[in-house]
Amino acid sequence: MAAQHSDAVTAAIADRRRLVNEALPDDVPIVFPERLYEASRYLLDAGGKRLRPTMVLLAGEAIADVDPLSEDYREFPLAGGIDLMAAAVSIEIVQTFTLIHDDIMDDDEMRRGVPAVHEEFDLETAILAGDTLYSKAFENLLETGAAAEHSVRALSELAATCTEICEGQTIDIGFEDQDAITEAEYLEMVERKTAVLYGASAAMPALLAGADDYVDPLYNFGIDVGKAFQIQDDLLDLTASTETLGKRRGSDLAENKQTIVTVHARQQGVDVTDLVPDDDISAIDEATVEEAIERLEAVGSIDYARDLAHDHVASGRDHLQALPDNEARDRLGDIAEYFVEREY
Amino acid sequence: MAAQHSDAVTAAIADRRRLVNEALPDDVPIVFPERLYEASRYLLDAGGKRLRPTMVLLAGEAIADVDPLSEDYREFPLAGGIDLMAAAVSIEIVQTFTLIHDDIMDDDEMRRGVPAVHEEFDLETAILAGDTLYSKAFENLLETGAAAEHSVRALSELAATCTEICEGQTIDIGFEDQDAITEAEYLEMVERKTAVLYGASAAMPALLAGADDYVDPLYNFGIDVGKAFQIQDDLLDLTASTETLGKRRGSDLAENKQTIVTVHARQQGVDVTDLVPDDDISAIDEATVEEAIERLEAVGSIDYARDLAHDHVASGRDHLQALPDNEARDRLGDIAEYFVEREY
Repeated sequence: MAAQHSDAVTAAIADRRRLVNEALPDDVPIVFPERLYEASRYLLDAGGKRLRPTMVLLAGEAIADVDPLSEDYREFPLAGGIDLMAAAVSIEIVQTFTLIHDDIMDDDEMRRGVPAVHEEFDLETAILAGDTLYSKAFENLLETGAAAEHSVRALSELAATCTEICEGQTIDIGFEDQDAITEAEYLEMVERKTAVLYGASAAMPALLAGADDYVDPLYNFGIDVGKAFQIQDDLLDLTASTETLGKRRGSDLAENKQTIVTVHARQQGVDVTDLVPDDDISAIDEATVEEAIERLEAVGSIDYARDLAHDHVASGRDHLQALPDNEARDRLGDIAEYFVEREY
Repeated sequence: MAAQHSDAVTAAIADRRRLVNEALPDDVPIVFPERLYEASRYLLDAGGKRLRPTMVLLAGEAIADVDPLSEDYREFPLAGGIDLMAAAVSIEIVQTFTLIHDDIMDDDEMRRGVPAVHEEFDLETAILAGDTLYSKAFENLLETGAAAEHSVRALSELAATCTEICEGQTIDIGFEDQDAITEAEYLEMVERKTAVLYGASAAMPALLAGADDYVDPLYNFGIDVGKAFQIQDDLLDLTASTETLGKRRGSDLAENKQTIVTVHARQQGVDVTDLVPDDDISAIDEATVEEAIERLEAVGSIDYARDLAHDHVASGRDHLQALPDNEARDRLGDIAEYFVEREY
C-alpha cells in the first residue's frame, strides 16, 4: 500500500474512532445499578481500534454517496434520515460483549492493556456485563429511526450474526482436540467466529436504508476482509515482536490453536503439534519459537497465509464495484488493505 | 383456591407445556456444531413448568377472545395470523439462558434434577450455550409473521427485559453485602430480576398484534403476579419440605440472601444474619433451621410475606378486567392464584 493510502486510511479510522468514542457514553450510559454499567463500559472505554463501527460509517457514506465526514452520523441522509452512529455503536457493543465472555472462557487476565473485566470486577459481574451489552446492542439498533421493515431486517441480521459467532467459537474450541483440519473447515470457522461481524457491519447501512442492491455486495465485502483480518491476526502471532503483540509470539503454536499456517504446514508433512512442545509459551525459550517459525517459513506456510489474506482482500474489493464510485468507497478498499498490512 | 379451579389451572398449564415441549426441537434444532446446540437444548429438554410460555399463549387466547386450545398456536388468529408459539418459545429460551448463566455465577451443580450445563459440559460451552440461546430468542421472535412495526415493539420489549433481568441480578448480588434493605428496594429488585419477564410474557401477544389497549393491563398483570411468584419462591425456601425443594430448606437464610421475609423480620428487630450462622446450609443442624423459622413466624414475617404475595395477585387480577370476559382470561387469573398456592 502506498504511503498516501496508508495515511488516508489511518486518518479515516482515527476520525471515526474519535466520534464513536464520543457516542459510547450517550448510548451506554452508566445508570443504576452502577457497578453493572461500569463493568459494561470498562472494556468499551479501554480503547480499541473501532474498525467495525468505522466500516459501518464508511459503508453508509459510500451508499449515500456523500463526502466522508460531511454529514452528521446521528442524522444521516439515508432513507429519510437515520441514526447511523447508533448502528455503529451497536456493532462495537456486540464485539465487546464477545471479548468479555471470551476472556472468561480463556481465563485471559489482560485485554487492551487493562485487566479483563472478570479480573477487574468478578466472574458474576463479567458474565452479567456481557449479557447486558448483548441486549443493549439490540436496544441501540432499535434506536436508529429506520423504517420498521428495515429495522426488522437489521435486527434479524444482528441476531443471526451473534448466533454464528457462538458457533464459530465452539468450532474453534473443538479444533484444539483435532489434528487434521482442512483449509475449508478452517475458513468456515473463521467466517463465523470473525468474518460475519464484519459482514454485518458493512451491510448494516444498506439494511437500515432498505438499499437492497447494496446488501449482498457489502456483506460479501465484509466477509472477505473479515477472513483476511483473522488470517493476518494468525500471522502476527508468529511474525510480530513481543513488544508489539503485548505477549510472547508463538503463543497460538504453544496452545495448539489451528491457524491457516498450521493447516498448511501439516499438509506439507510438518508435525505441528511438536513444534512448540508445551501449552504455556512462557515455559518455552525464544530459540525454540524462532526455530519453529523458521520451519513454517521453510515449507512456505507463512507465505501461503499471506497470499491467502491478500486474495481475500482482492476478492472483497471486487464486491465494492457494485457501489457508487466515490471517496468513501475508496476508503473502504483502503481499510481492506490495512487489515493485511497492519502490524498490530 | 377451590379444587375445581386448581384442577383447571393444572390442566391449562399441562396442556400448554406439552405443546411448548413439542415446539422446542423445531425452534431450537440441534445443528452443526452439535455440541453447542446439545448444550443449548440440555436444560430446555430437562423440563420446567413452562409457566411463562403458558402465560403468553393464554394471554393470546384472552385478547383474541377464542376458546382455550381451539386454535393452532402456529397460525394464531391475531392481526391476520401470527405464530404465537414462536413468541412463547422465545420467552422460555430467555428464561433458560438466564438459568444457565446463573448456575455458572452461583456455581450451582444441579438444576431441574440434572447437572447444570457447566457441569454436564464445561464452562466455555455453558457460556456459549447461554449466549446462543440469547440470540436465538431474538431470532425466534422475528419469526412470528407479525407486522414489522409490531415486531419492532415486541423485540424492543424483549431487549429491554433482558437488560432489566441483568440489572435485577446485579442488585440482588449487591444485597448480600448490605444489611438494611427496604421493602421498596427489595420489590424493585424483584421486579427486574423476576417480574419483567412475566410482564413481557403477558404483554407479548398484544404487542405482536398491535392491540395497544391490552399492552399495559397485561404487562402490569405480569409484573404483579411475577412479584407474587418470587415472594412465594422465597417463602417455599422456608416452609417447603427438603423432599419437595430438592434441597435443605433455609438455604437462603444461610446464604444471607435478602427476601421479603428477612426484610420484614429486620424491621421487627430480628438479627437475621445470625439466625443461621453459616454460609453453608449443610453445616447447620435441622433444629437451628427450625428455630430460625419459628422466630420468623413469631414476629409475623412469614404471614406478612404471604399476605403481600396475595395482595399482588389481587392487584394483578384487577388489571385483567380490561380484557374481554372469557375463559382464557379466567385461566390467567387462576394461574396468578396458582403462583402463590403452589408448593414447589
